[in-house]
Amino acid sequence: MSVFDETTTHESTTNAMVAAEPTPEEAAELEQMYAMMRDENMIPLWTQIDELMPMTPSPAAVPHVWRWNTLLPLAARAGDLVPVGRGGERRAIALANPGLNGLPYATPTLWAAIQYLGGHEVAPEHRHSQNAFRFVVEGEGVWTVVNGDPVRMSRGDFLLTPGWNFHGHHNETDQPMAWIDGLDIPFVHGMDAGFFEFGTERVTDEATPDISRSERLWCHPGLRPLSGLQNTTNSPIGAYRWEYTDRALTEQLALEDEGYPATVGQGHAAVRFTNPTTGGDVMPTIRAEFHRLRAGVQTRTVRQVGSSVYQIFEGVGSFVLDGTTHRVEKGDMVVVPSWAAWSIEAETDFDLFTFGDAPIYERLAFNRTYIEGETK
Amino acid sequence: MSVFDETTTHESTTNAMVAAEPTPEEAAELEQMYAMMRDENMIPLWTQIDELMPMTPSPAAVPHVWRWNTLLPLAARAGDLVPVGRGGERRAIALANPGLNGLPYATPTLWAAIQYLGGHEVAPEHRHSQNAFRFVVEGEGVWTVVNGDPVRMSRGDFLLTPGWNFHGHHNETDQPMAWIDGLDIPFVHGMDAGFFEFGTERVTDEATPDISRSERLWCHPGLRPLSGLQNTTNSPIGAYRWEYTDRALTEQLALEDEGYPATVGQGHAAVRFTNPTTGGDVMPTIRAEFHRLRAGVQTRTVRQVGSSVYQIFEGVGSFVLDGTTHRVEKGDMVVVPSWAAWSIEAETDFDLFTFGDAPIYERLAFNRTYIEGETK
Amino acid sequence: MSVFDETTTHESTTNAMVAAEPTPEEAAELEQMYAMMRDENMIPLWTQIDELMPMTPSPAAVPHVWRWNTLLPLAARAGDLVPVGRGGERRAIALANPGLNGLPYATPTLWAAIQYLGGHEVAPEHRHSQNAFRFVVEGEGVWTVVNGDPVRMSRGDFLLTPGWNFHGHHNETDQPMAWIDGLDIPFVHGMDAGFFEFGTERVTDEATPDISRSERLWCHPGLRPLSGLQNTTNSPIGAYRWEYTDRALTEQLALEDEGYPATVGQGHAAVRFTNPTTGGDVMPTIRAEFHRLRAGVQTRTVRQVGSSVYQIFEGVGSFVLDGTTHRVEKGDMVVVPSWAAWSIEAETDFDLFTFGDAPIYERLAFNRTYIEGETK
Amino acid sequence: MSVFDETTTHESTTNAMVAAEPTPEEAAELEQMYAMMRDENMIPLWTQIDELMPMTPSPAAVPHVWRWNTLLPLAARAGDLVPVGRGGERRAIALANPGLNGLPYATPTLWAAIQYLGGHEVAPEHRHSQNAFRFVVEGEGVWTVVNGDPVRMSRGDFLLTPGWNFHGHHNETDQPMAWIDGLDIPFVHGMDAGFFEFGTERVTDEATPDISRSERLWCHPGLRPLSGLQNTTNSPIGAYRWEYTDRALTEQLALEDEGYPATVGQGHAAVRFTNPTTGGDVMPTIRAEFHRLRAGVQTRTVRQVGSSVYQIFEGVGSFVLDGTTHRVEKGDMVVVPSWAAWSIEAETDFDLFTFGDAPIYERLAFNRTYIEGETK
Repeated sequence: MSVFDETTTHESTTNAMVAAEPTPEEAAELEQMYAMMRDENMIPLWTQIDELMPMTPSPAAVPHVWRWNTLLPLAARAGDLVPVGRGGERRAIALANPGLNGLPYATPTLWAAIQYLGGHEVAPEHRHSQNAFRFVVEGEGVWTVVNGDPVRMSRGDFLLTPGWNFHGHHNETDQPMAWIDGLDIPFVHGMDAGFFEFGTERVTDEATPDISRSERLWCHPGLRPLSGLQNTTNSPIGAYRWEYTDRALTEQLALEDEGYPATVGQGHAAVRFTNPTTGGDVMPTIRAEFHRLRAGVQTRTVRQVGSSVYQIFEGVGSFVLDGTTHRVEKGDMVVVPSWAAWSIEAETDFDLFTFGDAPIYERLAFNRTYIEGETK
Repeated sequence: MSVFDETTTHESTTNAMVAAEPTPEEAAELEQMYAMMRDENMIPLWTQIDELMPMTPSPAAVPHVWRWNTLLPLAARAGDLVPVGRGGERRAIALANPGLNGLPYATPTLWAAIQYLGGHEVAPEHRHSQNAFRFVVEGEGVWTVVNGDPVRMSRGDFLLTPGWNFHGHHNETDQPMAWIDGLDIPFVHGMDAGFFEFGTERVTDEATPDISRSERLWCHPGLRPLSGLQNTTNSPIGAYRWEYTDRALTEQLALEDEGYPATVGQGHAAVRFTNPTTGGDVMPTIRAEFHRLRAGVQTRTVRQVGSSVYQIFEGVGSFVLDGTTHRVEKGDMVVVPSWAAWSIEAETDFDLFTFGDAPIYERLAFNRTYIEGETK
Repeated sequence: MSVFDETTTHESTTNAMVAAEPTPEEAAELEQMYAMMRDENMIPLWTQIDELMPMTPSPAAVPHVWRWNTLLPLAARAGDLVPVGRGGERRAIALANPGLNGLPYATPTLWAAIQYLGGHEVAPEHRHSQNAFRFVVEGEGVWTVVNGDPVRMSRGDFLLTPGWNFHGHHNETDQPMAWIDGLDIPFVHGMDAGFFEFGTERVTDEATPDISRSERLWCHPGLRPLSGLQNTTNSPIGAYRWEYTDRALTEQLALEDEGYPATVGQGHAAVRFTNPTTGGDVMPTIRAEFHRLRAGVQTRTVRQVGSSVYQIFEGVGSFVLDGTTHRVEKGDMVVVPSWAAWSIEAETDFDLFTFGDAPIYERLAFNRTYIEGETK
Repeated sequence: MSVFDETTTHESTTNAMVAAEPTPEEAAELEQMYAMMRDENMIPLWTQIDELMPMTPSPAAVPHVWRWNTLLPLAARAGDLVPVGRGGERRAIALANPGLNGLPYATPTLWAAIQYLGGHEVAPEHRHSQNAFRFVVEGEGVWTVVNGDPVRMSRGDFLLTPGWNFHGHHNETDQPMAWIDGLDIPFVHGMDAGFFEFGTERVTDEATPDISRSERLWCHPGLRPLSGLQNTTNSPIGAYRWEYTDRALTEQLALEDEGYPATVGQGHAAVRFTNPTTGGDVMPTIRAEFHRLRAGVQTRTVRQVGSSVYQIFEGVGSFVLDGTTHRVEKGDMVVVPSWAAWSIEAETDFDLFTFGDAPIYERLAFNRTYIEGETK
């Protein structure tokens, strides 16, 4: 998208269709015509096509890694200087992709941020069209209240706040807590689709149950409440608990050891978080998965249309992004832009949470994948 | 369907379109014409329409109750006299609806039977187009092996054997075990859609794990293995465990007590067994649910197109079927034909398993419900 | 389905699981047990399984041909003797499959009949759950009024009367007219899903427009009225005109001649009648198509789960049904039961209308096809 | 999206969560923290939220009108100065929304351009992920060749070139021809989803048939070729002819005159161009419709999430865009950004072609409509 800025900052002069060496007269006539077009809010395709329609996706966003030991201290510092409250709404600090000209965007579609809530602080309730989730790499003590349903947040939990659901957070302890937020803010902003509404100053329900009502109603494998037979756009599950995620991954690797098909690749277990009413993604714009690689496992190099963000949950390993190797560990966050070539190498047993915008491309038939070594 | 027999046994002479009192000449000419038509395999609509196209569904099948204390002893008797083996394949005894002229059908679409397997007996493997499940009202010790995956059978478990999956059963104990089978045999037979294939004489895997590989891969709430992203016609889950069903129902009633919407009716908790890849029914022709009513609860009287079968899992209550009250208890089985008026009254806390053919009607847009006291 | 009758007429004594030669004592004990079961409305599987679950579909329905020059005169005879009116509702005479014990069914799911309306006669309005259509092999002069919309009936037209739409017919001329009706009466009857309601004695709109309002709204290729954006279970098109069907088939063969893919097989053009709101079949239970074979073309031999009926529209050719060749011509009707082996040979250019129950099997995942010479 | 530029040009200093008047020390500490964050590619939400998450969509794109008598002469001028050929590919001049900082975008998702092809010129073949169509407001003589299928272009025709279909254009006459192109270039560019491939220098088939093979195969109302039973992402129809569009609209108004429901509003006929394999939109990202208003008709004022472009096909009328009235006539083009309030007033009988990005919002559940005078 920053591409747009470039487009405007330098007036492209390339013109494949015009003689390489126009005469001074021709050049003058051309320039006069271009000027007239500009006055009429018209722009020729032929001066822009290389920019607008590249042979393959050429994102402005770049692969990049943010370190947890950088993110967390700066979030804590904000905790000291910036109170949470109405107006700013959240003490969230976004990952700004270095390729996107200082926009607070991890990719052209995805927002990724670290959010920090001090002891006994409350983030007031609001709702918006943007779809949101939280993932907890460490810590506990905060409850997020989604449409009045208090949801405990603990290490490994994946928590949903789909579009237009009221939500606020409150910290029950005197210790601060930090987690990551993922949203489709850049997409919704670019699409001019966003609505926003303020809720109560404090959360509507300060109870601190172990599990939310949404889990009590929906988190029973293969079962659906008869009171919930209508399919919903978003998953009705408020929290996907680490206990289940961990068990599912453990079983996949155990089945692989026993010689049965269960993993996506040798030593590579993975689950997708889904909407139980459809079996599809949790929200229309965001896909979320958890991957576990055994020490020594290396994934194939892949290019995909669409972007994603990874956070290392446990262990040590490397991301190879367009040929550059980045060694990462717990909490570090990695951005993979569209069509970047990437692979993962697990040094130790390696657990990763990831989210991306794949559902957008799949629903619009723009999805494409290239796997190195395979003929497409 | 037995209706068809009647059609053929008595040659209908009603003819609304012909003068009530035809002259002898007219009568003779008519009879001659009908005879000529018969010779040419032609039959007039006007002599059959009342039979063929009633104002509302008029099933030949009737509401009926089978008692567990009748079913079980006769199954045991068969256990003494009839060995299990190739040819007969299964020691299963079907509920034959009294209205269906001695056909082994619970309803025109559904097969319901009690199956009995003696100590250390083995039911050989086979597969067929018919969709099947088992539900265990009591006992344990048998494993059903579905496509090589051994599935433990215990009280309260709902177990799937979808169409064209190889399956056999083996009893690991020296005690007999009985359970109910539900299939779409009548439907598939009437539709001439059935294929059948023999498998091995014994089960292909005699292991006796607590949970099947299908559960290890699929029974994690809201999670889907990346190795299983293709949607499947049938649920990939081999066993829906009582532990989860019971917990889901308990939570619904607890939420109701706390003042939150969770039940289908006051004091009436219910779950549907689903295919996690779609959120829909477990198999294309069969819907299965579990209901829990609090003591004293009475459901509204309902008529529905399509038929269903109930088995009382625990407690005592009554079914009111077309105005007749049937008191039932653990193990008893109740058949509700299409468009019969029915309601349930719970004397004690009342747990019921039920299955029916609703998916057929819904997929073909024939479903219709009439709730007494509501204007449709 | 007639199978059911057999089941009841002869008490099967086969019992693969019982010793071929039981001792007199054993035989007595068995017979006593079977008697007890009968008293309790219970029937063993092992005495019925060969009948209930054959290796491949073994329909009671048989392939059969009805001759137009037999159907039409008998329909005319009924025109003389049987007035049309309330009660009998229609002067329709059904094709009764010789294998179905005198039931007025072409197959276990399909009703096919010749309907005859004399000059200036009126068939009163009614509606029913059963899905219906008409196809006109010859003649004109009748309008069918569907939910108040008068639809002209002429040679080659395919006309819809989906479930629960009021409809009646009136003949504007002093000449009789005959056509074929296709419905899912047997299926709906067997499923106990039928509702019926009388309408007005005469049709609600006696206008005789060339095209119906449904066509004026919906029959514009690739266009959908903004007033009709809701998808409908049934096609909103009341009449599929011969003019369009003929043109579509002509173009397919012309494209084939020009060397482009357009036909389903060399010299074999075919179209399916569809619901423009979904692109799917016209009604949930019935598929209708029109086929055109060039003289000399022979189709491959095929077996399919599900049944169908053909009517020859023009030309001469043969149906090979389970090895028997039937030469057919204009108006003749052919029934192909489930899993029968069939192929068509065109003697002259050969036009055929056909309808079948394929949507039922596809929606319930029972569809299966075997093409001779192909490995499945 | 131009919004992004602003974001970067002015460093927002608003901070609702910080004391209105921080002390110099506090201000210094804050600025130091913000600087550290910038260095680490981190940006706080609280300084950006008003910009990123407005209360309602606040597009940078503005409502705007381009005049045909401005567009056409400038396109003709380009015809004199700029040859068509490989590299620039097309002599197309885009409408650049005045709000989008000189980007060649009609809206953040849609590209709209006038394309001009001189006598006997050829635009070489290529293909790209971007979905494209052409609409012809006047003229004829050009054939667009889509995957080898030559498609005539004439006044009123709507022509498809879905993503990844090879296409080129050639002018058979010695007269120039102009038409409009619509694509999802801005969306695909912002999403980094675009692939591009060159084809032949000239079109692969220079035949000039009246109708394309795609029409011969697919443009028969309610009929589907058996050779095309697979549903396709994009419509298989290459050209939606004016003859059919005009007839459909005429019939709707005639039916309205006769007192039957057919129009979307009094005196307002409208059709949507659809994919006959699904009944849905012609392409996953673009909706196209044609509207006809009777003289004097005024539509209700509406706000919709998502943007659209109109071209007046015939007649004179006005667009009221966010309260400003723009009188428009044949060929003029109007852009309606997301959530702008708009209505149309027809001075004479008024025909309009329109396309928009609604399918994107609907498939992702961001669609929302506000109709003035209705309570949402």
